[in-house]
Amino acid sequence: MLHLVGLGLADETDITVRGLEIVRKADRVYLEAYTSILLVDKEKLEAFYGRDVIIADRELVETGSDQILDGAQEKDIAFLVVGDPFSATTHSDLVLRARELGIKINSVPNASIMSAIGATGLQLYNFGQTVSMVFFTETWKPSSFYDRIKENVQIGLHTLILLDIKVKEQSLEDMARGRRVFQPPRYMTVAQCAQQMLETEETRQEGVYGPNSLAIGAARVGSAQQTFVSGTLKELCDADLGSPLHSMVLLGKRAHDLERDFIREFAINKETFDNAWKGNYSGI
Amino acid sequence: MLHLVGLGLADETDITVRGLEIVRKADRVYLEAYTSILLVDKEKLEAFYGRDVIIADRELVETGSDQILDGAQEKDIAFLVVGDPFSATTHSDLVLRARELGIKINSVPNASIMSAIGATGLQLYNFGQTVSMVFFTETWKPSSFYDRIKENVQIGLHTLILLDIKVKEQSLEDMARGRRVFQPPRYMTVAQCAQQMLETEETRQEGVYGPNSLAIGAARVGSAQQTFVSGTLKELCDADLGSPLHSMVLLGKRAHDLERDFIREFAINKETFDNAWKGNYSGI
Repeated sequence: MLHLVGLGLADETDITVRGLEIVRKADRVYLEAYTSILLVDKEKLEAFYGRDVIIADRELVETGSDQILDGAQEKDIAFLVVGDPFSATTHSDLVLRARELGIKINSVPNASIMSAIGATGLQLYNFGQTVSMVFFTETWKPSSFYDRIKENVQIGLHTLILLDIKVKEQSLEDMARGRRVFQPPRYMTVAQCAQQMLETEETRQEGVYGPNSLAIGAARVGSAQQTFVSGTLKELCDADLGSPLHSMVLLGKRAHDLERDFIREFAINKETFDNAWKGNYSGI
Repeated sequence: MLHLVGLGLADETDITVRGLEIVRKADRVYLEAYTSILLVDKEKLEAFYGRDVIIADRELVETGSDQILDGAQEKDIAFLVVGDPFSATTHSDLVLRARELGIKINSVPNASIMSAIGATGLQLYNFGQTVSMVFFTETWKPSSFYDRIKENVQIGLHTLILLDIKVKEQSLEDMARGRRVFQPPRYMTVAQCAQQMLETEETRQEGVYGPNSLAIGAARVGSAQQTFVSGTLKELCDADLGSPLHSMVLLGKRAHDLERDFIREFAINKETFDNAWKGNYSGI
C-alpha cells in the first residue's frame, strides 16, 4: 500500500498519531522535499521516527515514481509530504501511477497552509482561489497571478499567495554544461512578494490593487515562531518577518469588522492601517 | 494560556503529537461539539487522552466564554476543535475575548475539510470560495449559497459545499415553551444537498448549474471509510454515501484533464460522466 502522510507545517511533532504509527511500521519511508519544507531537518525527523528517511527530490518523484512504488503491492511505502499530502499536483501523478500498478492508496491528511492561514483571523469562507508567486528574473516576470487576483478582487474575496521556494536548483550555466551542482536554497520573503506585486501593478495598470491596499504577511505558520504583520503593500515592501517560510494574504473588500478587529492587532502602523481600512473595506 | 487544538477529521488518532502533549498536560480540556463532529464519541477520546473532556456546546461557547477562560492567565486550557481550530467564526470570538483578558494564545493546526478535500484529486488552486448549505424547511430556503456559487462558476472554479449539521437543536415548540428537550442530531447527506441545489436553480433560473452539471460527493473524508462518488447533480440526488459527515464539490469549468482522470474513477456511471464532461469542462 502507498501511504501518503501529511506532516503538517512546522516540526516533527506536527505529524498525527495515526501518521506516526504508519511511518514507524512502513517498509520504506520517503520525504518529499521540494514543494515545501518543514522548519526542522531530516536528521531530526529520523531521530523522532526512529528510522531512516529517503529524500525524494523533484527528479525522483517526477521520473522515478516506479522506484518509489516498487513492491508496494505487498509492502507498505510511506510517502511523507509537508502540509497536506494533496496540496501539490505532483502527488496526484504518483497516485494515478499507483492505481495503474494495482497498488492500494491510503492518505493521512494534515494541516495545510490553505487552512492554517485561518489563524490570521480571516475567515476561510472569504477566500477566493489561491495563487503562487514565483521569483522574477530580469527577463521573466510572469503575471498570471495578477489575473487570478483580479478575479478574487472583483468579487471582494481575500487571496492567499504562496511564495516560491527554490530547493536544489541548478544555475542555467551548470545545467547547460551538465554539471550536477546546486544553488543554495532560496525562499521568497513577504517583502519580495509585495515588491513584485507592486511592480506588476505598475506594468499592467489595471488597478487591481495599489500601494495602499491592505495585506497580511505570515511567517512560519503553525509553529511557535508564527508571526503575522498587517499593513499596506507599501509598508510590507520593507517588512522583515525573519526566517522562512513566508506567505501572504491580499485583503478582499468583503472583509468584515470581526476580521478587522483580529488583524489590526498585527498592524505595522495602526494609523495607516485604519486609514487604509476606512471606506475601502467592510463589505464595500 | 489558551491552546486551540485541531483534532483533524476522523478519529482520536488524528490529533497531532504536539496537540496530544498539550491535551495530556492541560488543566482543563474542552471539546467544541456543535460546528462539526468526529466519527468517534467523547468516551473514546477520553480513553485515548487518559483524561476527562468537557463538552462545549453552542451555549457555553457563545455565552460562557469567560467560564472557559477562567484562570487561563496562569493555567493551561485546551479547547479542542474538530478539523482546524480556525475553521469557524465562533473561535475567533473566543480568541478576541482571551486577548482582552490578557491571556496568551497558542494554536495547533490540523487537517480541515477545506484542504483535505484535495484527496478527491481536484487541485486546491482551482477552488473558489467555500459555501455552506443549510437544511431547507417549508418556509425557509435561503439561497445565498447560490449567489456565491454563481461567482465561482463565472470564473470557472470548483466550489466546496459544506453541509449542515444539527446537534442539540430544540424544536420551535419546545423552544417556545422553554423546554430544554433536544432533537436527535441530523446530518445533511450529499443527496439532500444535490436536491436542494436543483430546487434552488429551478426557483432562481439563472442557469448557474443544472441536472447535468458534474459534482463530487464526499463522505467521511480523512477516515479509512472515506468515500467519493462523482456524477451529475441528477445522479447525486439518489446517491447513498452512508453515514456522516458528507460534503460536496461542484466542478468548475476550468477542471483539467488530470483532475478528470482522477475523479472519473469515482463515477457512478462512466458513460454519463464522459458525456457530461465532453464540451463542458477542461478549461472552457
